[in-house]
Amino acid sequence: MFCGIVAGRVGAHRLVEDEHTVSFLNLAPATVGHALVVSRRHAEGMWDLRDEELARVAAAAGRVARLLRGALGAAGVNLVHATGAAAWQSVFHFHLHVVPRYRADELRPMWEVEDRAPDAELAAVRARVQGLDPAS
Amino acid sequence: MFCGIVAGRVGAHRLVEDEHTVSFLNLAPATVGHALVVSRRHAEGMWDLRDEELARVAAAAGRVARLLRGALGAAGVNLVHATGAAAWQSVFHFHLHVVPRYRADELRPMWEVEDRAPDAELAAVRARVQGLDPAS
Repeated sequence: MFCGIVAGRVGAHRLVEDEHTVSFLNLAPATVGHALVVSRRHAEGMWDLRDEELARVAAAAGRVARLLRGALGAAGVNLVHATGAAAWQSVFHFHLHVVPRYRADELRPMWEVEDRAPDAELAAVRARVQGLDPAS
Repeated sequence: MFCGIVAGRVGAHRLVEDEHTVSFLNLAPATVGHALVVSRRHAEGMWDLRDEELARVAAAAGRVARLLRGALGAAGVNLVHATGAAAWQSVFHFHLHVVPRYRADELRPMWEVEDRAPDAELAAVRARVQGLDPAS
């Protein structure tokens, strides 16, 4: 569907666009002004997107967030992205949510602030991750 | 606190770093491998960060996400950022959460999929936003 929007075959409430990205209002907004930034190039999720493409999407999200703040008086903003069904991805074309936040809105955190993890546990996770990164 | 981590005065389970960003494990992880990417330059939130800085943080998050996936076998990933207390920002130094997702984890969506908004309502929001953007 997002490829159709990028190509102009599918209508959308477009906000801003550039060489690499298109931004438009989400049809089913969580808050007023909830927007999506998509890469023009079709990529399913983060594993298929090059870091520089992710960077361009993020830069566009910054522009969109400032527009929404100025126009709608948002008190804050969340950026949210999902890759994979396990992360609740539902449209399999890379997109980044820009969600303006208002003091009276009804969103809820994805997680509660947890207890601090034991240091040994974090150190073990770090070691597993570092084992894969020859630059470390 | 994050400035202390960037400067090396405060300990952290650092994962990767580059000229502009530092990534480390969250002390109170929502899931195993939950990491934060911060800008080296102190900026409170998105309103204080230049788009190119946001882009560098996002590119680093891509690298971190791939490392976590390879090391920990995550089934998906969420990127989450908060600017402003209304968006649940709690540490006022720009950071982007990289949250590996697993099929059995206990996170919950920030919003339920809502009904589609009336087209006239979306058109009105778009008009308000476009009014601020002379490039449109």
